[in-house]
Amino acid sequence: MSDVAVTALCDIYPDRVDALAGPVAEASRIKPRAFTDYRAMIDARSAYDALIIPTSMITHGIIALDALRAGIYTAIEVGGAASLEECWALVRASEEHGAPLMMLENCCYGRRELLVTNLARQGQFGRLMHCRGGYAHNLSELLVEEHDNNRHMRIYNYMGRNGDIYPTHGLGPYAKLLDINKGNRMVSLVSMASKSRGLPLWISENKGPGHPFAKTDFTQGDVITTAIRCANGELILLTHDTQLPRPYSRAGLVQGTKGIWIESDIGKDDEPPLHFRRMGMLHIEGKSPMAHDRPNLRELWEPASNYLAEYEHPLWREYLEAQGNGVNAISAGMDTIMLRAMIDGIREGRAPIDVYDAAAWMSITCLSEESIQAGSASVAIPDFTSGKWIERKKEAGKYSLD
Amino acid sequence: MSDVAVTALCDIYPDRVDALAGPVAEASRIKPRAFTDYRAMIDARSAYDALIIPTSMITHGIIALDALRAGIYTAIEVGGAASLEECWALVRASEEHGAPLMMLENCCYGRRELLVTNLARQGQFGRLMHCRGGYAHNLSELLVEEHDNNRHMRIYNYMGRNGDIYPTHGLGPYAKLLDINKGNRMVSLVSMASKSRGLPLWISENKGPGHPFAKTDFTQGDVITTAIRCANGELILLTHDTQLPRPYSRAGLVQGTKGIWIESDIGKDDEPPLHFRRMGMLHIEGKSPMAHDRPNLRELWEPASNYLAEYEHPLWREYLEAQGNGVNAISAGMDTIMLRAMIDGIREGRAPIDVYDAAAWMSITCLSEESIQAGSASVAIPDFTSGKWIERKKEAGKYSLD
Repeated sequence: MSDVAVTALCDIYPDRVDALAGPVAEASRIKPRAFTDYRAMIDARSAYDALIIPTSMITHGIIALDALRAGIYTAIEVGGAASLEECWALVRASEEHGAPLMMLENCCYGRRELLVTNLARQGQFGRLMHCRGGYAHNLSELLVEEHDNNRHMRIYNYMGRNGDIYPTHGLGPYAKLLDINKGNRMVSLVSMASKSRGLPLWISENKGPGHPFAKTDFTQGDVITTAIRCANGELILLTHDTQLPRPYSRAGLVQGTKGIWIESDIGKDDEPPLHFRRMGMLHIEGKSPMAHDRPNLRELWEPASNYLAEYEHPLWREYLEAQGNGVNAISAGMDTIMLRAMIDGIREGRAPIDVYDAAAWMSITCLSEESIQAGSASVAIPDFTSGKWIERKKEAGKYSLD
Repeated sequence: MSDVAVTALCDIYPDRVDALAGPVAEASRIKPRAFTDYRAMIDARSAYDALIIPTSMITHGIIALDALRAGIYTAIEVGGAASLEECWALVRASEEHGAPLMMLENCCYGRRELLVTNLARQGQFGRLMHCRGGYAHNLSELLVEEHDNNRHMRIYNYMGRNGDIYPTHGLGPYAKLLDINKGNRMVSLVSMASKSRGLPLWISENKGPGHPFAKTDFTQGDVITTAIRCANGELILLTHDTQLPRPYSRAGLVQGTKGIWIESDIGKDDEPPLHFRRMGMLHIEGKSPMAHDRPNLRELWEPASNYLAEYEHPLWREYLEAQGNGVNAISAGMDTIMLRAMIDGIREGRAPIDVYDAAAWMSITCLSEESIQAGSASVAIPDFTSGKWIERKKEAGKYSLD
């Protein structure tokens, strides 16, 4: 990105800062200032326009809070909150110091998620009733390897905790679609967990009894479902599923009074064209095919890719035209588009995924833990807008998800 | 079935009895006795070996109770219970009078459900952690038409009620797979409902404002999810989704420490071979394909039909051999196999889906209503075996689902 420079770097490990300084200087055409204490980097705020905080799930909130209190435009990586107070603190700091917080939830800018968003915004599904999303990704090997070889502590979240500890990939796109915090809000949830077996089984079978984690008690349920009720009566269902051998999925579903879309990655991997399966399947009343020989089983699925020509989101249309490659782009693209959304936000002083979204989405983690510990009790989700959701207006900007 | 005769008939509407008497006599080679009062039919119990009660969801329990109390082998159609007391009454009547009750849950004998059962029983999924099922079937037109033209009152369940009113198609196969009532049991559930919009919308758009139901308040949520916790720590998720335009699905999923299967009907309707899509997709660790170019996204789906040659259930192998048609049989077959299971049960004095199964499965309906009315409260599921589930032994018979 020729209009962007990384002017400062911080990592608690000096060797990482050293290793990154050269490549970053080359890409940014300027030598970055280097820090190993994030507070020093915050103090040097004249050196940059905004901070990206991609630290761990249990540190990015703490660092973001200090950054917001210093009035810095703050972008944070995804992850759930450990307490409601952490969410409230981010909201109050952003409000008090006039500093936007943006959550870098790349899945909100995914090609299929934006195709579905565009279809929904143009009324193709009718009135929305139900959305599903999730994070189904077998992390067993990764959790151990990144701990052992990369000073990465994510696996500690699987000891002691038990809840949807990574809710935003599955929730973000559909929270935006359901107008959460702008005309709607999430009011309550219930979570339920299966027992925890996958991770210790993988470790014992693949790392042997001598591995430091071989005798660890893991508490995080292998599969966790969370049902969320919205103020306007919609039902959201989330899944967290990261310790069992299974194909990756974000478990998407959008259902309304006129149609339904489901994520579907189940084609063969070499089946052309790739976007056929990666856009999912849908049925839209009055448009999609019907079976004529089965009186009460008439609706049929069709590939959502059939609607790309008409309903591709403008952000993706632009991106693919710039790439000159309209078929296979799926994941790199959403990161790029999201980062451009952030840069636009820094310039305009706004955040398309703002502090209220971040607080609400992150709160699902500690609330799902609370619900599970209380025997799947129904727990209230705070209104982090303090009532403003009733009147908050949607934004029109190019990168807006409203 | 040359070894079976229908020797008596009962319907509250005399014209229906009259219309059926001829065809039944021809098929059974004997003139059936005819009744319009079910109590009279129960009193004539020497006329038959067993009763099938396929009346409505809110009458079959009442009639079954009278039949059990008369010591009759009783088979009932599927459907949920209106109260826990109804479930207990069936259990106590069956125990006290030594009369088996069998629930005619045909989906338990579906080809793909039995393929998955066979795969699971032979350890292909490892230790089971999570199952999903549901009833996703757009009934809007059917509910109105059957009421207006066929004296069928099912639509009244959509007024006043709000819960999973038809849980057994989705629950039955997986309750058996998880050994519910024989070594395991369902201990608690939470349900959440979306608002209710689909049915009145369909009626107003298709039947006009003059239709008797055009101004009815429907209460049944369009989409209802129910999470069930099992004594051994497994998590079951059910969906009820019958008022929105969407393709049919029973939303099946079976997941364990070594693999996962999902129902999948998303191929094109004319895609050959039909069983490719109708058997669903799976991933089994160590057997299914892996992607080599994506380090942390390696597991791939493959068609479950790949496993038919080795893991087709013996009941289906026999059925398909008798049919001389191994490809397209799917629905008719499961009804036939289920009825043969019932006939075997009548002869042997047993029920492969017995009164404890029926009570537990039917109880999900009134418990989901209770949970929703109490704001998605966690509610206990009774142990209808009164503790016997801890020691109850699996049965070996040909039609056993244990």
